[in-house]
Amino acid sequence: MINVEYVNPFIAATLQALEVMAGLRPTRGSPFAKVTCVAKGDISGVISLTGDDTVGSVALTFSEGLARRLYSSMVGEVASTLSREVKDAVGEVANMIAGGAKAVLVQSGHSFRIGIPVVVMGKNHLIDHKGVMPCLVVPFQLEDDTFWLEVTLKSR
Amino acid sequence: MINVEYVNPFIAATLQALEVMAGLRPTRGSPFAKVTCVAKGDISGVISLTGDDTVGSVALTFSEGLARRLYSSMVGEVASTLSREVKDAVGEVANMIAGGAKAVLVQSGHSFRIGIPVVVMGKNHLIDHKGVMPCLVVPFQLEDDTFWLEVTLKSR
Repeated sequence: MINVEYVNPFIAATLQALEVMAGLRPTRGSPFAKVTCVAKGDISGVISLTGDDTVGSVALTFSEGLARRLYSSMVGEVASTLSREVKDAVGEVANMIAGGAKAVLVQSGHSFRIGIPVVVMGKNHLIDHKGVMPCLVVPFQLEDDTFWLEVTLKSR
Repeated sequence: MINVEYVNPFIAATLQALEVMAGLRPTRGSPFAKVTCVAKGDISGVISLTGDDTVGSVALTFSEGLARRLYSSMVGEVASTLSREVKDAVGEVANMIAGGAKAVLVQSGHSFRIGIPVVVMGKNHLIDHKGVMPCLVVPFQLEDDTFWLEVTLKSR
């Protein structure tokens, strides 16, 4: 069973990060639980969460077009490819989401460290978080585009 | 500059994990440092390392054929696709490598926690560890096949 208490701070942090960093206001879709995380995308930022009592990971998966749009909105420059700058932007957004969620979760006694962002690229790649807990996938809609937030978090 | 003291335990743990878990004895190639980690593969196991004084990540990247061979050697059953069992095997091997390296590094005062394995699939995907430190890539040869160990680790 997914503990919603864990997940809501990540959803709130995603909306906040996109708005603050890029002026984008995506619409949140309905979360669903999966035993395997299977968001298919072109670029993902993945961050590991490890603490004394809590372990998990968070991933943010974009299509190439949406990642380039995110970068353009953040920086004000057009990116015609998945350049190093776009990859860095995806890593930064994932980092800000993990940090924002951590700041909320620490107040309810869940303390963990945030790992360095790992950015994965490749057409239709899949990410599988090998937790014992299932993973909560939250789709976000930005006009015609969708991106996915995946959170898996469990007590040790 | 890469601190070799950090990397050698991961190389030793890779050779040990492959031999103990699968009876495979790959040959180690020459390590090289990259600012961006760019091992191209079909399936990777990625593990985040986070501690008080040390932060980084380790990734193990295989072709599909080699991942299936690894699984077959571990379990004694043929895998004709990148099944859930093959993915689990890649995550397990990455976990064993991180654990083996940790056991050595803790003796020299480098203490860190091991995150949950994240397994990435997708033809020719790339993994980019967003560390400040460059990443050391170590190719391993198993007859005609190559797989890659990537380690990035730095003091906070």
